[in-house]
Amino acid sequence: MDAGIIKRRIKAIRYQLNAVRHPLREKKQIKSFLVTKPANVTYTTGFLGDDGWALITNRAVYLLTDSRYIEQAQSQCHSCRVIQRRGTMVEAAAKLLKKLKSVQTVAVEKSVSLAAFEALKKHVKVRLKTVANIIESARSIKDKSEVAAIGAAARIAAQALRQTFAHIKPGITENELAGRLDFQIRKAAATNSFETIVAFGPNASRPHHQQPTSRKLKKNDTVLIDFGVRFKGYCCDITRCFVVGRPNRFYKKVYNAVQQAQTAALKIIKAGVAAKKIDAAARRVIRKSGLPVYGHGTGHGLGLEVHEEPVISADSKAKLQPGMVFTIEPAVYIPGKLGIRIEDDVLVTETGSKILTCNCSYQPLPPF
Amino acid sequence: MDAGIIKRRIKAIRYQLNAVRHPLREKKQIKSFLVTKPANVTYTTGFLGDDGWALITNRAVYLLTDSRYIEQAQSQCHSCRVIQRRGTMVEAAAKLLKKLKSVQTVAVEKSVSLAAFEALKKHVKVRLKTVANIIESARSIKDKSEVAAIGAAARIAAQALRQTFAHIKPGITENELAGRLDFQIRKAAATNSFETIVAFGPNASRPHHQQPTSRKLKKNDTVLIDFGVRFKGYCCDITRCFVVGRPNRFYKKVYNAVQQAQTAALKIIKAGVAAKKIDAAARRVIRKSGLPVYGHGTGHGLGLEVHEEPVISADSKAKLQPGMVFTIEPAVYIPGKLGIRIEDDVLVTETGSKILTCNCSYQPLPPF
Repeated sequence: MDAGIIKRRIKAIRYQLNAVRHPLREKKQIKSFLVTKPANVTYTTGFLGDDGWALITNRAVYLLTDSRYIEQAQSQCHSCRVIQRRGTMVEAAAKLLKKLKSVQTVAVEKSVSLAAFEALKKHVKVRLKTVANIIESARSIKDKSEVAAIGAAARIAAQALRQTFAHIKPGITENELAGRLDFQIRKAAATNSFETIVAFGPNASRPHHQQPTSRKLKKNDTVLIDFGVRFKGYCCDITRCFVVGRPNRFYKKVYNAVQQAQTAALKIIKAGVAAKKIDAAARRVIRKSGLPVYGHGTGHGLGLEVHEEPVISADSKAKLQPGMVFTIEPAVYIPGKLGIRIEDDVLVTETGSKILTCNCSYQPLPPF
Repeated sequence: MDAGIIKRRIKAIRYQLNAVRHPLREKKQIKSFLVTKPANVTYTTGFLGDDGWALITNRAVYLLTDSRYIEQAQSQCHSCRVIQRRGTMVEAAAKLLKKLKSVQTVAVEKSVSLAAFEALKKHVKVRLKTVANIIESARSIKDKSEVAAIGAAARIAAQALRQTFAHIKPGITENELAGRLDFQIRKAAATNSFETIVAFGPNASRPHHQQPTSRKLKKNDTVLIDFGVRFKGYCCDITRCFVVGRPNRFYKKVYNAVQQAQTAALKIIKAGVAAKKIDAAARRVIRKSGLPVYGHGTGHGLGLEVHEEPVISADSKAKLQPGMVFTIEPAVYIPGKLGIRIEDDVLVTETGSKILTCNCSYQPLPPF
């Protein structure tokens, strides 16, 4: 990760943190921040390993990790000091804070487990102040390098899907198709951003039919593939549906309704619009078609995590800002019969939006 | 999941919970338990989806999940009542607890996030009592069905590795080899229990070289493959190392030391032995060989999670009990040069132990 980018992020986070006042001495600012959530650790240090906490002070950023990850941390983190922990993460954090005599209060992320927080209270001698969503909120606005990484992930996804098309023939199982797609992703030096979902026929009526089965593809069967690629830490998330053979009239009707719902949502995306309006626009089209309206949100942010801010749902309080990246994935599910979902990833710009998954020039298989 | 097994688990958990006394009224027992950790929810309900909390009362078990998982929950959970949540998980739990008028105190797992715990305190009107390791501790002793599932995962892993052997030839990249192995796992209707690690040559000196690279396999290169299969929710975890071609004398020396370290640990496993003794036995062999001793533990429990109780390390306070399943994975890492780790999964029995990964009859490639 480019050291300049990390430095800009740290500067912005320090600024946000300074807006959180110390509870007892109102004038004092909190000047150190213990980052415990893995994606937030990656964001503030560049470290992509599993075991890491970061401590941000007003002078430096420290990464605590265990012996297994030292080599990796040293190669990935160019603007922070890597410290090998020996005891538990909490003990290592307490030890470091004890050394840094200028730190009097440390902010801790509320996403930490209650057990870890209680252990911190026991071991750390400085004051603890809990904070939420400081880094998550910064992460919801992507910089150019992040948009580029998501775009690259989307291109790899498109290529992998294209390379898998030849295998989508009657007789293949859901499991095998998922495996063939995942293999192409791996071959492209990327990984899955979540477990690939492949659902044939009525299996697609489970919105998150997560375990592909040994069900074999039959002629005129419907196929739903929901998958994502993680590249340089960043995720994309795409769903495509199609029929192998000739779609019946009902399938066409539902597919068109879902596609129109997605278009309706995409059309009104731009900076300043309330996220819930995007959600309502998609849902309205499904409702008007007389089809059952999906129970999940219309979309979710994505970046270092495959689900992050903003949420595009009826309850969302988010207002779209340039640099936000999220999915738009309306759907129709008819239990035991069919499920159709179309999902693309979109970037909010000053004047509108840009579909990051569209460059990929793949389309649902003919006849669509 | 068999309803009888779930019932036995719930009975044991209720018994453990009753041992935790209410903080204010010492005589009162805690009779309800909010389970929030995903693996613990699976253990107590059979639900394998992503979004679930369970509430155990002395009359029933409830599963809260969202609309995406209702069909799946209904097919996986035979002894609990499935409730579709509409608001947040916390709101759904509060609503359910309000309905169940007999519940006066609810135990909450300390693994919950601080944010969720604060929200529970705000929304739930009954008393909250935090508890830790009740279900984790029960989970550390596997029943027959769990041992069978881990064994099945290990057999799938062995078969997948055998089917991949033909591809281990000079020119293949780490990425492609990982992808080929994962494909075989998927084809067998299973998934990875963690991201497959493939490291060629000096890359193996990073104990958790987690991102296979585009490095190509060369003649006489060393190969380290660390991978796991998840089957029916249960994980196995295996590491194999070998040389493609002719190993040099140093490789042979290190390999033999690691193998002897593993044998030394395996030999003394039986009920009643302290976990730290197992760790010490393996480490002693490496030290005596004059090689650098690995920085990680010698093993970790595995089951619904790929890392769970007991920990086999120098700091471990665990005492082995029949039914425990864990890895034994001593290693030698020489940065920039080589890394060799051998990892098998072992079940503790009354009289000794049983290697669950050994039935698999695959061996490191010749000449080993």
